[in-house]
Amino acid sequence: MIKMISGFSKLTKEEKINWLAENYLNNSNTITTIKQYWNDDEKLQQLHDDFIENTISNFYLPLGVAPNFLINGEAYAIPMVTEESSVVAAASLVAKFWSTKGGFKTTVLGTTKIGQVHFMFAGDKVALENYFNKKKTALFAATTFITRNMKKRGGGILAINLFDKTDKLENYYQLHITFETKDSMGANFINSCLEAIAAEFRNNEIEIVMSILSNYIPSCLVRAEVSCKIEELGVENPQKFAEKFQQAVKIAEIEPYRAVTHNKGIMNGVDAVVLATGNDFRAVEAGVHSYAACSGSYTSLSHCSIDNGVFKFWLELPLALGTVGGITALHPLAKLSLEMLQKPSAKELMQIIAAAGLAQNFAALKALTTKGIQHGHMKMHLQNILNQLGATQTEKEKITTFFEGKTVSHAAVVSKFEEINSI
Amino acid sequence: MIKMISGFSKLTKEEKINWLAENYLNNSNTITTIKQYWNDDEKLQQLHDDFIENTISNFYLPLGVAPNFLINGEAYAIPMVTEESSVVAAASLVAKFWSTKGGFKTTVLGTTKIGQVHFMFAGDKVALENYFNKKKTALFAATTFITRNMKKRGGGILAINLFDKTDKLENYYQLHITFETKDSMGANFINSCLEAIAAEFRNNEIEIVMSILSNYIPSCLVRAEVSCKIEELGVENPQKFAEKFQQAVKIAEIEPYRAVTHNKGIMNGVDAVVLATGNDFRAVEAGVHSYAACSGSYTSLSHCSIDNGVFKFWLELPLALGTVGGITALHPLAKLSLEMLQKPSAKELMQIIAAAGLAQNFAALKALTTKGIQHGHMKMHLQNILNQLGATQTEKEKITTFFEGKTVSHAAVVSKFEEINSI
Repeated sequence: MIKMISGFSKLTKEEKINWLAENYLNNSNTITTIKQYWNDDEKLQQLHDDFIENTISNFYLPLGVAPNFLINGEAYAIPMVTEESSVVAAASLVAKFWSTKGGFKTTVLGTTKIGQVHFMFAGDKVALENYFNKKKTALFAATTFITRNMKKRGGGILAINLFDKTDKLENYYQLHITFETKDSMGANFINSCLEAIAAEFRNNEIEIVMSILSNYIPSCLVRAEVSCKIEELGVENPQKFAEKFQQAVKIAEIEPYRAVTHNKGIMNGVDAVVLATGNDFRAVEAGVHSYAACSGSYTSLSHCSIDNGVFKFWLELPLALGTVGGITALHPLAKLSLEMLQKPSAKELMQIIAAAGLAQNFAALKALTTKGIQHGHMKMHLQNILNQLGATQTEKEKITTFFEGKTVSHAAVVSKFEEINSI
Repeated sequence: MIKMISGFSKLTKEEKINWLAENYLNNSNTITTIKQYWNDDEKLQQLHDDFIENTISNFYLPLGVAPNFLINGEAYAIPMVTEESSVVAAASLVAKFWSTKGGFKTTVLGTTKIGQVHFMFAGDKVALENYFNKKKTALFAATTFITRNMKKRGGGILAINLFDKTDKLENYYQLHITFETKDSMGANFINSCLEAIAAEFRNNEIEIVMSILSNYIPSCLVRAEVSCKIEELGVENPQKFAEKFQQAVKIAEIEPYRAVTHNKGIMNGVDAVVLATGNDFRAVEAGVHSYAACSGSYTSLSHCSIDNGVFKFWLELPLALGTVGGITALHPLAKLSLEMLQKPSAKELMQIIAAAGLAQNFAALKALTTKGIQHGHMKMHLQNILNQLGATQTEKEKITTFFEGKTVSHAAVVSKFEEINSI
């Protein structure tokens, strides 16, 4: 049976849910489940409903906090939104560890972003260049009404260049435009500027294909670093630990199968803060992974050195973030997250997030090169299964003791739970 | 002032919040805000608190629904979790459009995943190969207690290979292991197997560096396609539209700055369903973007052809997903999302998500190559600002009418709002 509908978006929320229940949800409890997640405060609920279209409920992701991050001498408690267990615990442990060794040192290496007007032009290239040079002032002028406020904040359009891409695709050229968007992520600003520039630039011979910002942002870059003397690494055999840690990083530098997961671990930390502060994690993910591949071979974003008895671990990440605009101020918990971070500028947020990413990477590599990654995961996994089974505190303790050193599987836990309950 | 703390994780949730309020949150309303997001049902709240560590509240992301997806002849209403406006609306519109033209055709091209034991060995390579070949049966046997249940479901370890990587890094070898994990994403299963294999494989000459799954999954692949006659494209000049659309795809194929954003648009659709079904979006993002870069130049994941008057648009995506395990069954709304999708197998979910990604990409390219991307965005942006300002329905209508055809900025909306309210 094909269950299609016209005018779904025009239905009320209740009507949408009823239609879904009738056509796609067989279980009669589902309506209760959906409504159980609504907020009692109708106005607050309306705000959340209006963020996107066809909203039926609020999907909960836990908001956790990793305290004790020391970044450039400032202490932070970092809000993190993630469904993955161990991420917040790992960040907290690593933050505390490095706080006694000078903490994280971070630097913003660049903040510019790129937008492009892609167009086709079949005529003479020199004529196009002349047209572009003559038009350039008008292109800037066409955006005045958009850039006025951004300029007040020190941002705007830094450069407009004409790029010839006809070697790659017949008749294909670009206006390649460099932006500074200060504390806003800038997607709306950049796209509005680009569309205004395209409208001004087009003529009978120039066919605009599209005007759009790029999420590839190799010049919007932040660096984070930790370092200490090897003997301060706080493990039994620090020299051996440092060397093995470095080997793990070297493997991620030369082996793409490992590099992808290595960087995924960095992103566990990065995305959790990106989400908590109301930023767009798809944009950040796209920027980071494409940057990891920009040399032609996908590689690690973090690096490690051991020189003169000093262990150093660092990463460079492209991050396009906003601390104003978008939902940063609209979502009460995104706003709260930014308050918890002392209302950072976008540049400060870049540095905090880079530190969170480096912390996560350090935790993962430390676990992997010592007791293995499963040890910590299994503990959390077990607790989640026990919660699902509705185990009491006593049952939880008994079963946790039983599974120490053993492999946790859903089936094994259920079986142990049933065994205990059948006594 | 450096505000550090010991034993934060041991504090109760209330104590954690009080400490944050005292040290990092100056605004006294913040405690109220944090608690306003708690669920009234204490047991349900406890479940969500326990997913991660140091949880203080529930971060809401809207759960929306895009109905009218026709995929391989089956109708779906697709649950989507995203903070980005326009994503669900675009998916719904595109789904409906293609449902009258045969819908989405999807195929799973592969489902295998890779895990690796990375190790160092300084001895004779032939001796290592002999050791590996003799040990192979024991390596499989070492995982029997983990693979038993997976084998019943038709999964398990498909192959264990020894790879020499000493040309890239001195003494570096891998056990490169191929897995089939059926309906589970398989991260815990794969990592547990790898650690058991590593423990069995190590000897005095073999130093294990780490054992870990890869999120690079070029052999866990799904294809989604739409096609129709050009005259069915439902626009004023369908031939022109199809050609310009194809040009936009070609540009994404050859220009990395565009490709990254092109694929980011695909991921807007993909991640929304990944989140709604309780899957790990960092894993999916890492797999997808690294795959987009695997040729050595970052490129578009979707392609377009025009042949004999037929417009065809398709993509191939690597997707490692689970419909059992992890939080898929633990998070009541993830469970509900899977019910809405008729309790799909992992293979079915791969296809649904690929269709959602293709739909999103089609919507973005259509907007970009016709009226521009800002048109739709601005409408939603305006509504969000008006909500923030607490505008009444009448005020909303007035201001919306005023901004038709105009650029929406936060400052401009506030100024108009104040103007209306000062009359």
